[in-house]
Amino acid sequence: MSTRPTKQLEIVPNPHPDRKYMVEIESPEFTALCPKTGQPDFATITIKYIPGPSIVELKSLKLYLWSFRDEGHFHEDVTNIILNDLVSALKPRYMQVIGKFNVRGGIYTTVTAEYGEQ
Amino acid sequence: MSTRPTKQLEIVPNPHPDRKYMVEIESPEFTALCPKTGQPDFATITIKYIPGPSIVELKSLKLYLWSFRDEGHFHEDVTNIILNDLVSALKPRYMQVIGKFNVRGGIYTTVTAEYGEQ
Amino acid sequence: MSTRPTKQLEIVPNPHPDRKYMVEIESPEFTALCPKTGQPDFATITIKYIPGPSIVELKSLKLYLWSFRDEGHFHEDVTNIILNDLVSALKPRYMQVIGKFNVRGGIYTTVTAEYGEQ
Amino acid sequence: MSTRPTKQLEIVPNPHPDRKYMVEIESPEFTALCPKTGQPDFATITIKYIPGPSIVELKSLKLYLWSFRDEGHFHEDVTNIILNDLVSALKPRYMQVIGKFNVRGGIYTTVTAEYGEQ
Amino acid sequence: MSTRPTKQLEIVPNPHPDRKYMVEIESPEFTALCPKTGQPDFATITIKYIPGPSIVELKSLKLYLWSFRDEGHFHEDVTNIILNDLVSALKPRYMQVIGKFNVRGGIYTTVTAEYGEQ
Amino acid sequence: MSTRPTKQLEIVPNPHPDRKYMVEIESPEFTALCPKTGQPDFATITIKYIPGPSIVELKSLKLYLWSFRDEGHFHEDVTNIILNDLVSALKPRYMQVIGKFNVRGGIYTTVTAEYGEQ
Amino acid sequence: MSTRPTKQLEIVPNPHPDRKYMVEIESPEFTALCPKTGQPDFATITIKYIPGPSIVELKSLKLYLWSFRDEGHFHEDVTNIILNDLVSALKPRYMQVIGKFNVRGGIYTTVTAEYGEQ
Amino acid sequence: MSTRPTKQLEIVPNPHPDRKYMVEIESPEFTALCPKTGQPDFATITIKYIPGPSIVELKSLKLYLWSFRDEGHFHEDVTNIILNDLVSALKPRYMQVIGKFNVRGGIYTTVTAEYGEQ
Amino acid sequence: MSTRPTKQLEIVPNPHPDRKYMVEIESPEFTALCPKTGQPDFATITIKYIPGPSIVELKSLKLYLWSFRDEGHFHEDVTNIILNDLVSALKPRYMQVIGKFNVRGGIYTTVTAEYGEQ
Amino acid sequence: MSTRPTKQLEIVPNPHPDRKYMVEIESPEFTALCPKTGQPDFATITIKYIPGPSIVELKSLKLYLWSFRDEGHFHEDVTNIILNDLVSALKPRYMQVIGKFNVRGGIYTTVTAEYGEQ
Repeated sequence: MSTRPTKQLEIVPNPHPDRKYMVEIESPEFTALCPKTGQPDFATITIKYIPGPSIVELKSLKLYLWSFRDEGHFHEDVTNIILNDLVSALKPRYMQVIGKFNVRGGIYTTVTAEYGEQ
Repeated sequence: MSTRPTKQLEIVPNPHPDRKYMVEIESPEFTALCPKTGQPDFATITIKYIPGPSIVELKSLKLYLWSFRDEGHFHEDVTNIILNDLVSALKPRYMQVIGKFNVRGGIYTTVTAEYGEQ
Repeated sequence: MSTRPTKQLEIVPNPHPDRKYMVEIESPEFTALCPKTGQPDFATITIKYIPGPSIVELKSLKLYLWSFRDEGHFHEDVTNIILNDLVSALKPRYMQVIGKFNVRGGIYTTVTAEYGEQ
Repeated sequence: MSTRPTKQLEIVPNPHPDRKYMVEIESPEFTALCPKTGQPDFATITIKYIPGPSIVELKSLKLYLWSFRDEGHFHEDVTNIILNDLVSALKPRYMQVIGKFNVRGGIYTTVTAEYGEQ
Repeated sequence: MSTRPTKQLEIVPNPHPDRKYMVEIESPEFTALCPKTGQPDFATITIKYIPGPSIVELKSLKLYLWSFRDEGHFHEDVTNIILNDLVSALKPRYMQVIGKFNVRGGIYTTVTAEYGEQ
Repeated sequence: MSTRPTKQLEIVPNPHPDRKYMVEIESPEFTALCPKTGQPDFATITIKYIPGPSIVELKSLKLYLWSFRDEGHFHEDVTNIILNDLVSALKPRYMQVIGKFNVRGGIYTTVTAEYGEQ
Repeated sequence: MSTRPTKQLEIVPNPHPDRKYMVEIESPEFTALCPKTGQPDFATITIKYIPGPSIVELKSLKLYLWSFRDEGHFHEDVTNIILNDLVSALKPRYMQVIGKFNVRGGIYTTVTAEYGEQ
Repeated sequence: MSTRPTKQLEIVPNPHPDRKYMVEIESPEFTALCPKTGQPDFATITIKYIPGPSIVELKSLKLYLWSFRDEGHFHEDVTNIILNDLVSALKPRYMQVIGKFNVRGGIYTTVTAEYGEQ
Repeated sequence: MSTRPTKQLEIVPNPHPDRKYMVEIESPEFTALCPKTGQPDFATITIKYIPGPSIVELKSLKLYLWSFRDEGHFHEDVTNIILNDLVSALKPRYMQVIGKFNVRGGIYTTVTAEYGEQ
Repeated sequence: MSTRPTKQLEIVPNPHPDRKYMVEIESPEFTALCPKTGQPDFATITIKYIPGPSIVELKSLKLYLWSFRDEGHFHEDVTNIILNDLVSALKPRYMQVIGKFNVRGGIYTTVTAEYGEQ
């Protein structure tokens, strides 16, 4: 599991805890650094989840995603780290995180990781 | 269940009650207020349902969706409230409500809630 | 079942009756009248079917769809009527009719009805 | 000229007053009421201008556009009112306002008004 | 000039008669009959005009366009007739009418006629 | 000038000869043979013209375009031939013919020829 | 089964016969004649198959599809004939042929026929 | 199995080996030669895989795909060769390779090959 | 004029100095901070120029654009600063810089500044 | 002027030398090497010209564009070289060459060079 502090993520109680419903959140403004070259990477992060007891507070999620801005991360790793952090904070029934990274060297990379079952 | 008055929703008898068929209604003109800041939120609301004894009268549905214009609602909550109100009024075999909210703070949110089975 | 005369629909023998294959026909030029206001409604009608003994002759289908031009019909009803008429005339193994109606009052409506199993 | 109070519009000094450059601002979240029926209208408002001594502060522009939410306005009129108000506040070299209104009764309306020369 | 009665077209005073501004109106729901075969034709009619003393009332324009529903007209002719009728009623500074007709026999036809100068 | 028989092209009197208006006709179903290899070529032919005394009858235009089906023509040549034939038959004020040919050997070719001034 | 000569279709050995993989081939340049009117029809033909012992040589497939150019065929029939001919020649594990025909009389037709199981 | 040297492919340990997650890599810049004519072919190669013990290092993958630039390969063969080479190097739980080749002779070809189960 | 150090911008001699030709460079990965809130802003920067004695070296341009990552800038200002810096370094015949900023508070902003004449 | 041998370019006489008409040719399959790194670059080359005495033979143009495959060229230079070579061979009235290069380091580059006047 990730060791990054997740103190930025705030949660609020799920207003409809008895129903299995899906929340999809998309942020096209994710940026981190390449751990090899130090150059900026850019991605669209999509988070889909079926809430358990809590839903994520959107402003804190925005701050959480911004916290990667000056950190170095590989594509495959950072997508899984975001999934781990959000699962720890939200205890969802199901969650999927998709990291769609901008082209580098003529190659487009997308990483999709899941927790639980839909 | 929601406590909003649903008196605006009028129903008419299903003209083909013996067949399982799907009605999909999309309104790109939903607006409510943010309960935190009081600022307007905008969304496209999509309603898919397999009618039971009744179908919804479209003009009354339009008025029902307009009734949120001056109310404060969180994204996850209002999508489920619309589902609850329509299920109460229509007794459908199946219903799905999708709220696709305009970007706020660089984040797009979509909430999908269902009742019954397709 | 519908009581509209279906004499316009001509059928021809299925040239490959032993194979389950799909025919999809789309007409973006359907128009009828609103039974409440008398104003014109417009729709795209899509018909998908797995033929049984017969296939529909396309010119007669065009005339059949034109025959609604001066009639008043609700969206949910007319989609099912078209399905009933075509099932009566063609005896298909499976048929789906989709009526995608133009926006009215800021609301888009699509009705999907099926006969048999795919 | 319009008599609506324009106190919401705040201006800041143009940081490059010696250069003729273009600023384009688009808000897809404009809503007002129909003065005939009282029903909500929706539009995308686009503002293009070559600044004079001032540029508009974006948050105050957002509040200005929100101030129409509960007012009744005809399409042709409100587009010209927005132009008049912004010209009064900003004294631009050139300004164009485009109001692209959602479909009503099967008809889409766009109004384009200009001040000065490009 | 056309001899069709234009009594359906209602006008209202131009609220900003001193400014040259453009109004664009698009109706994708125009239908008439082919004068040769009697079969329905479909078109999108776009009207752009710089108002003179009057603007067109939208509901009366909708009724005016519907009045062609049972009449036979050639593509080139009906586009010019609409231009003539609107120029007679509105006395605009400039007007353009575009009729974009649905494909017939594998051929798409668009007719563009203008009055005055932009 | 071309020596192909143009007897297929029928003309009808221009119903609005006093106005300069534009007619645009698009046929995505043009096919001829490559004069080098005998293999089929495919193109979309677009014809724009300001009519003089006559307009083209659409069915005869369709037959005219079909008449190239079994003939060998180079891209640059056939586009000019169509322009020459239509100018001869219609005496337009202005005409433009665009031949947009399907990709061959990884290369897309479009030829645009004009007669008169717009 | 079809009686058209299939001598144009050449096959080559499947280079990876032990793996179930899919080949999809799309030709937007199919043309035949309408058996009723003699007028040209146009279609996009898509062929998907899981090869058995052989794969189709592409140039011979191109010639095979061209061989329909002067023949009269109904939409439903010709799609099945192409499937039959290719199954005879290739002995695939699975094959699907889709014929997507250009609009005629305002109606779009698509025929999908399959052989074997995916 | 392929006999091409795969020494260009470098692997790095999977940072989340306990989770089944999907990596999708797309390169629109693949080019090889036609083994018949020696002329260049172009394709978009898409690789989707669920990593096993290793993930592919992206720069080495880019070099690997470039290594085909001067080699002659049939479409069906080269897609399977890429799959074989990557499976050998990465030992994934699942892998799919899609080769979408540019149009040749009016025909588009796409080859999809898989290893393991999703 | 801007006082930011422009040492990152490297230039190379224009290989065709006698011809007026246009170079267009687009970077969808520009990010800076909002000078009011400190929150990240994102933009696509497009630079079009007719070279004078020099052209810009692309890697140094990339580094130059990255240098704004931790700085606070208003939209209108930063677009003009980039134009000033590039004009200083390159002495172009003509240059245009377009900053297309991501939506904030439901408002999209685009700034276009030019130097010289096209 | 360029010193590359242009012997691949074959010309044929312009079949309509008295008319100013435009030929547009687009090849999305251009590839060369980066002169700095030796890595492949990819581009779409578009050539528009008004023919003088000659038009280009398309197969020889294809071979000419392929001849850059193993050469190192900068974006700005190679676009001008292609223009120079084609002007030398064809003596056109007007010619424009556009090189639209694939993204490198998050930056898209397009170079547009012209000869003569349109």
